[in-house]
Amino acid sequence: MPDAPNLLYAQSGGVTSVINATAWGVATAAAASPKVGRVYAGRNGILGVLAEELIDVTAEDKREIAKLRHTPGGAFGSCRLKLTDPAKDSRSFERIAEVFKAHRIGYFLYNGGNDSQDTTNKVAEFCRARGVDVRCVGIPKTVDNDLAATDCCPGFGSVAKYVAATVAETALDVESMARTSTKLFILEVMGRHAGWIAAAGGLPYPAAGPVILALPEVPHKRFFAAVKAKIAKHGYCVVVASEGLADAKGRHLSERGTKDSFAHAQLGGVAAVLAERAKAKLGVKYHWALADYMQRAARHLSSQVDLDQAAKVGQAAVAYATAGKTQVMPAIVRTSDRPYRWTVKPVPLQEVANKERKLPKGYVTADGYYITAACRRYLQPLIAGEAPQPYRDGLPVHARLRRRAVRKKLPAFRV
Amino acid sequence: MPDAPNLLYAQSGGVTSVINATAWGVATAAAASPKVGRVYAGRNGILGVLAEELIDVTAEDKREIAKLRHTPGGAFGSCRLKLTDPAKDSRSFERIAEVFKAHRIGYFLYNGGNDSQDTTNKVAEFCRARGVDVRCVGIPKTVDNDLAATDCCPGFGSVAKYVAATVAETALDVESMARTSTKLFILEVMGRHAGWIAAAGGLPYPAAGPVILALPEVPHKRFFAAVKAKIAKHGYCVVVASEGLADAKGRHLSERGTKDSFAHAQLGGVAAVLAERAKAKLGVKYHWALADYMQRAARHLSSQVDLDQAAKVGQAAVAYATAGKTQVMPAIVRTSDRPYRWTVKPVPLQEVANKERKLPKGYVTADGYYITAACRRYLQPLIAGEAPQPYRDGLPVHARLRRRAVRKKLPAFRV
Repeated sequence: MPDAPNLLYAQSGGVTSVINATAWGVATAAAASPKVGRVYAGRNGILGVLAEELIDVTAEDKREIAKLRHTPGGAFGSCRLKLTDPAKDSRSFERIAEVFKAHRIGYFLYNGGNDSQDTTNKVAEFCRARGVDVRCVGIPKTVDNDLAATDCCPGFGSVAKYVAATVAETALDVESMARTSTKLFILEVMGRHAGWIAAAGGLPYPAAGPVILALPEVPHKRFFAAVKAKIAKHGYCVVVASEGLADAKGRHLSERGTKDSFAHAQLGGVAAVLAERAKAKLGVKYHWALADYMQRAARHLSSQVDLDQAAKVGQAAVAYATAGKTQVMPAIVRTSDRPYRWTVKPVPLQEVANKERKLPKGYVTADGYYITAACRRYLQPLIAGEAPQPYRDGLPVHARLRRRAVRKKLPAFRV
Repeated sequence: MPDAPNLLYAQSGGVTSVINATAWGVATAAAASPKVGRVYAGRNGILGVLAEELIDVTAEDKREIAKLRHTPGGAFGSCRLKLTDPAKDSRSFERIAEVFKAHRIGYFLYNGGNDSQDTTNKVAEFCRARGVDVRCVGIPKTVDNDLAATDCCPGFGSVAKYVAATVAETALDVESMARTSTKLFILEVMGRHAGWIAAAGGLPYPAAGPVILALPEVPHKRFFAAVKAKIAKHGYCVVVASEGLADAKGRHLSERGTKDSFAHAQLGGVAAVLAERAKAKLGVKYHWALADYMQRAARHLSSQVDLDQAAKVGQAAVAYATAGKTQVMPAIVRTSDRPYRWTVKPVPLQEVANKERKLPKGYVTADGYYITAACRRYLQPLIAGEAPQPYRDGLPVHARLRRRAVRKKLPAFRV
C-alpha cells in the first residue's frame, strides 16, 4: 500500500543455508500486507543501514525472490559489526533513526544471533526515547543453536543434518580402509562455545559405535584413551570435534591469535592439533577434515524442518510488526517430540539478548563423549526431511538478485 | 550355476562414493550369468585374497545388495597394499594362485586405480605362466581421474559435482560477508599430481568470476597477485587448491614427512599454507576448508552419470570375463559431448597400468588459474544428474552387509 510505512530488513552475522528462506518469508509476507509500503533491505546488514545503502526488495523479480528458498549465503549481504553502547556513543543509533525517518521506515526486522538481538533491542529503546515510531522485531538465525528462549534456531537443523550425514558417509569410508590405512578420522565442525553442531554427529551411530564427540562443554582428560578404546573395538574411530575445544585452562586448542570485530578469537585447526597428539600418543594413521563454511552453506542438504522454520520466523516477524508488536522475536516452541510438532510465539528481546545456551548436562553421556537419548530425541526432528534443491547442468540453481539501490536522501556518514 | 567357476571381486585403494555401485553391477551381473558359480569378495581387498578371507556375496540379502547403489565407502573393505614384483619375490602371487585354485575361482575382478591395474596384469601373467585358468579383468575406479585409456574414471564425476556445488554454495556465503569479514576462502581438494578435481571447482563461474584454481600442473609464481586482483574486482576470492600443489623445486607445499604404503607422501594442509602466506602478503582475513574424505564419501551428492558408469563397468567386467577375455579393463568411451553419449570397450591392461593422466595443457587458461572452454566441455557432462539417495529419519540409508566368511581351505599365510 503506497501510504503505508516501509519495512526494512537486514541480515546480521554469519550466514546460514536457510537465512534467505527467512528473507523470502519476510519479502512475501510484507508484499501481501496492506500495512506495509515498500520492502527495503540493508546492503551488508546494519552497515547498509548506517551508510544509507538500501536495496529495493519490492523491485526484485518475483521468480528470483522465490529462489531465495534454495539459495545459501545472505542475498542482501551481511556483516560483523558491533555497535557501540548508545549510553557511551550514540552516533550510530542517531544515524539509524535518521535513516528510518528519511525512508519512512515503520518496521525494522533484524535477522541474526544473540549479538544482533541485543542490537535490535537497543535500536528499539533508542527510537522510543527519540519518539521515532518504528516496530523493531528480531528474527532468530544461527547455526550455533545457542539462542535463549527458542527451542532451536533456524540454520542449525541444516548444519546438524549436514554433519550427521557426513559422519554417516565418512565413517563408511574409514571403516573400509582401516585395516591398512587411516584408523582415526577427525571432522572439525563449528561451535565456538556450545557443542550443538558436534552433538549432531552422534545421530548416525549409537554410543557403542565408532564415533566420539569432542564437545566444548566437557573437559577432555581421557580423550585419547577413549579414541584408543574405539580403535581397539571397531578397528577405527571417527571424532567429531567442535572448533571451540579448550584445554584445562580454558584456552582454545587452536587460537590463531587473531580476533574478529566482536573480539572473538578466530578459530579453526582443532582437528589438526588433536590428530597430531593422537599420532604421538597412539601411533595411528589419521586424516582430518575441516568443514568450515561448507557446513553452513550446504543448502543442497538442508533439513526441510529447518527450512520451514526459517521461512516461518520471517513471516511471523512481519505479522508481529504489522500487528504493532515491538522488541520481540518469534521463538520456536516445540509442542511434541514424536510426532514432531512446533509453533512460533513472540518472546521479549531482553530474554534473548546476549545470552548463550549450551548443551544441557543431561544431553551428554557420563563419560562426556556422546549424546544421550534425551539429546537424540531433541535433535532428530530438526534434521528431518530433505528440502528440494533444483539443479541445472548438474549444479544447484541459486537466486541472483538485482539489488537495486534506493536513492539516498541523507548526507554521507562515516561508519 | 553350481558347476560353473566362481568369481572373485576385490576393491583396492582409496574408496569412492560409487565404488559400491560397481560392486552392485558385478554382483547382479554375475548372479544372472550361467557361466558364474558363486560370487566372492576379498575382505579388505587383495589382503583378504592373500589371507583367504573371502566374503560370500551370493549369500547376502538381495535388498542389501540393491542398497549398494547408494552406499559410499567400500562395502567389502579395501586396502593399500603394493605387492612385491613377482620377478623378485613371487610368494604373494603364488598364494593368490593357490587361493584361486582352492576356491575354484575362474574370474578375478580387481577394482582400483593405476597401481591396481598393474597388479591385475601381473596376477594374470603369473596365473598364465603357472597354468592357472583365471580370467583377470581390471575395473576402473579413482576420484583422481588419472587413469589412462579411459575418457573418465568412475568416482571422479561425483567428486567433481561435490566440489563444484560446494564452490557455488560457499562462494555465495563468502560474497555476503566479504565487506567486513572473510575476503579469501580456500577449499583444499584431493588430487595428488593431477588437478582434475580442482578443475571441477571452475564449473560454477566463468574465468572472470571470483574463483581461482590452484592446480598441481601449473607453476604458481603469480598466485598472490591473482588473488589480489580477484579481491580488488569482486571484493572476495575463492581458491580451489589441489592437495598436490608443489613449490618451484617440486616439493609439495605441505608434506607431513610421513609416507603411505605406496611410498606416496601423505598430503593435506596446502590451504593452511596458502592462507597464511596470503595473509602475510595481502593482509586479508581468510577462512579455509579441507574436504578430505568428505568429498569422496559424499554419496548424497553423487552424479547420476558417474553412478551409471560405475555400475556399467562392473557389469561389463563380468561380461568380458565370462566371454573369455582377460588382461583387459572396461574403459569409458565418449562418443558425443552434447548431448553427452558414452559407451564402454575393453582395453588391454598394459595400456592403463602405472600411467598417470594429467590435465592437458589445453584445459588450463594461459594464466594457469582457470579452466578453458574445452575443459568445461569435458567436465560438464560428468557431473550431470542427481543420483537418488533414500533417507530415513533425516539420514541417508546405507547397505549393511552380513559379510559371511567363506570357509577356509588352506593353511595360514603371513602377508
